[in-house]
Amino acid sequence: MVINIENILSEISEDTQLNLDILNDFLKIKSISTIPEYANECMKAAEWLKNYLTEINLDTIIYESEGHPIVYSEYKSQKAASKTLLFYGHYDVQPVDPISLWNSDPFEPTISEIDGEKCIVARGASDDKGQLLTFLIALKYFFKNYGELPFSLKIILEGEEECGSKTLPIFLKDYEDKLSADIAYVCDTGMWNKNTPAITRSLRGLLSEEVEIIGPNRDLHSGEYGGVAWNPIRLLSEIISKIYSTDGKIMIPGFYDGVSEVQENVKTSWSQLEFNQTDYLNKIGQITSSGENDRTIFEKTWSRPTFEINGIYGGYTDEGTKTVIPSSASAKITCRLVGKQDPKKILDNIHSFIKSNVPEGIKVNFKGSDYCKAIEFDTDSEFFSVSSEAIKEEWGKAPVYTGGGGSIPVVEVFKTQLNMDTVLVGFALDDDRIHSPNEKYNLSSYVGGIRTWARIFSKFV
Amino acid sequence: MVINIENILSEISEDTQLNLDILNDFLKIKSISTIPEYANECMKAAEWLKNYLTEINLDTIIYESEGHPIVYSEYKSQKAASKTLLFYGHYDVQPVDPISLWNSDPFEPTISEIDGEKCIVARGASDDKGQLLTFLIALKYFFKNYGELPFSLKIILEGEEECGSKTLPIFLKDYEDKLSADIAYVCDTGMWNKNTPAITRSLRGLLSEEVEIIGPNRDLHSGEYGGVAWNPIRLLSEIISKIYSTDGKIMIPGFYDGVSEVQENVKTSWSQLEFNQTDYLNKIGQITSSGENDRTIFEKTWSRPTFEINGIYGGYTDEGTKTVIPSSASAKITCRLVGKQDPKKILDNIHSFIKSNVPEGIKVNFKGSDYCKAIEFDTDSEFFSVSSEAIKEEWGKAPVYTGGGGSIPVVEVFKTQLNMDTVLVGFALDDDRIHSPNEKYNLSSYVGGIRTWARIFSKFV
Repeated sequence: MVINIENILSEISEDTQLNLDILNDFLKIKSISTIPEYANECMKAAEWLKNYLTEINLDTIIYESEGHPIVYSEYKSQKAASKTLLFYGHYDVQPVDPISLWNSDPFEPTISEIDGEKCIVARGASDDKGQLLTFLIALKYFFKNYGELPFSLKIILEGEEECGSKTLPIFLKDYEDKLSADIAYVCDTGMWNKNTPAITRSLRGLLSEEVEIIGPNRDLHSGEYGGVAWNPIRLLSEIISKIYSTDGKIMIPGFYDGVSEVQENVKTSWSQLEFNQTDYLNKIGQITSSGENDRTIFEKTWSRPTFEINGIYGGYTDEGTKTVIPSSASAKITCRLVGKQDPKKILDNIHSFIKSNVPEGIKVNFKGSDYCKAIEFDTDSEFFSVSSEAIKEEWGKAPVYTGGGGSIPVVEVFKTQLNMDTVLVGFALDDDRIHSPNEKYNLSSYVGGIRTWARIFSKFV
Repeated sequence: MVINIENILSEISEDTQLNLDILNDFLKIKSISTIPEYANECMKAAEWLKNYLTEINLDTIIYESEGHPIVYSEYKSQKAASKTLLFYGHYDVQPVDPISLWNSDPFEPTISEIDGEKCIVARGASDDKGQLLTFLIALKYFFKNYGELPFSLKIILEGEEECGSKTLPIFLKDYEDKLSADIAYVCDTGMWNKNTPAITRSLRGLLSEEVEIIGPNRDLHSGEYGGVAWNPIRLLSEIISKIYSTDGKIMIPGFYDGVSEVQENVKTSWSQLEFNQTDYLNKIGQITSSGENDRTIFEKTWSRPTFEINGIYGGYTDEGTKTVIPSSASAKITCRLVGKQDPKKILDNIHSFIKSNVPEGIKVNFKGSDYCKAIEFDTDSEFFSVSSEAIKEEWGKAPVYTGGGGSIPVVEVFKTQLNMDTVLVGFALDDDRIHSPNEKYNLSSYVGGIRTWARIFSKFV
């Protein structure tokens, strides 16, 4: 099989509008996985993918368990010695609230120009619908021109990445025999900046929990019971404030066990990255940065663990005043984990820490937790070199090996359950506003992404 | 005018079902003043009152300004030497949330038996619809039996007590010339317990404010920006925790300026009240009490100022997890004030305290504040003695002079704007769940209340 990559690349560039129409169609589906009311939209997204994959020539099924379905495709190369790739992406998206901050309907994709760059604005544009399509669309050109792929392929597209991936381990167990591959590819990460590609070499783990503090046994009138009743909002606030030291350390006992310093050569490569801290903070409306005082921004976001409160609620929150002492107050917590931090142990320590910081008789409920460990890859392997080379050809410079601040739980599962490494290649940009209002994906990311995958594929001939 | 009070009292007892039907009818009106959507229900309640008062023979008008209307009645005694009373009540009620905790529709009054006592369950049953009707219904028997009252009377029934009483000062200014009276009566307070009546001799003031902390300029992904972005929930929690010392003192500078110790004789009378602290705390589901460690429950709720968070919100609060660092977090605050505390000064100090406790570049918004001063009455006056005597006849023991934990802003306005003292006589009980789900008013409060007012009225012959 001889591949004319230049021919494929010019076809991709010519087809820009056609491929945008495909993305546009996909983005209209409201596949919000965390809100039960959108379950049928998740199914719609799965069916849309199945149709697309079947059309380009891949055997595809929809796998169903209790949660949102998984779309699974297989392709067997005729050539005995060919490599087997496993690709993973997720078709589910984050909720859209606060809806009032969107400039257009999150599910009516709009082409805008932001800072001189054309981009498509919609929920999921970057995370992960736009990104996963770069891979799937690149495949099309190989079938179209050669009727085959130069490698064997397995594709897993899940619909629960944003809500805990409950179905995935069941699927992986069910399909264990079919899933062996040489390497996994995931397209859910970013570039260093719009001119500098990146491969993510490590990912922080994630731990989530919700805590509810119960003070009085019912809502009370603050005039009658103020000064006597334990206000759960105050108690919850005091707990949260005790979690952080004044210099930004997390005070949960044992929190930093298993956290090691990054190697000197990695630190050096980070120090050489083009980076303006003032601009970086400015972009998010800040003058100073939070977190550990003695750490750089790269350390804080790539190699250090975090403890964040993602939501808080309690008492009267509508318009006006209500002189109430609420019965309960709740906070939603997530921690980013690194190195060898043990999520189970940390969760236990969080529970004990919170329980030991409430007065006698005050109840504490934990509403369900979930976690995955942090992960690091060996960047010396064949697949990292091949990918790095293809990326360099497309973007004119070698990708930087960055750390990932976010968590992609599937990568840990591939490692522990299938014993498989993952190459994380993605084309998202820092200002894509993923999980925020007005999420977008640059056209340069989309078209450059499709071209990059075509180049990577052509290396496996 | 010779009044046969025993005759009136037996009529009242015979009419229990009739008078309950009147209350029932009034409670069905959803006059929630804090939520703009219920404005027409507030008007409905005002019209209901006007009809009732007109029917019993009082000249009544509906006064309208920008907010919810005020119902105003006048009655001029033919006897030159008669006293003039001014009565105040409010027909508006608190919101009903959380609706899921109600055992019946808050606006479909239900008769229940709680701890062996018959009571009527509905929003406003105790605060203040049931209470104000005790006064208005007692009047009926005087007109019915004698065609007149033994005193002159002015009645003000407002619809904004639960939302800041904006219309009232405008009305008082407009009607200044008409409102002169010897004393004001308000029925919006409680008994010591179901067998022990009370007159409230002091009221705490109220200060309300809402604070919003703005961290990043938009919601951020906690994987990308966790450990770097200032999480406004953390910052707000830290501010709240700094407000309270470990021994329960409020740490806002100058907060206790103008707070004096209660007189020894009042302290002594409090120490003689039948009171079981364990039971009291048990009833609200607590083992210990919050607030200043070195103060009794009576001091904490009657003579000491408080600082409460009535509501808190920020970030993702729906089902499941969203790995977001929110742009903002908000808290609704109210303080109860006592003695000579200066609300304006305290508010300024709260603003400075909060602003000085956020990192550089973090924005703080205050969303609008409101306040009224604390107040104390001279219990040696004629009207306190007359009322006390009538109350003793009805309940078999003299009323205790208690402190009021809550605030009734109108009482301060009567003092400062009309230079008039107020006798606070009410029949609510501690377990009436006012401002909470399943608010109720005991039949013994309702009927005993009507009888008490009839006895008070008969003293003015």
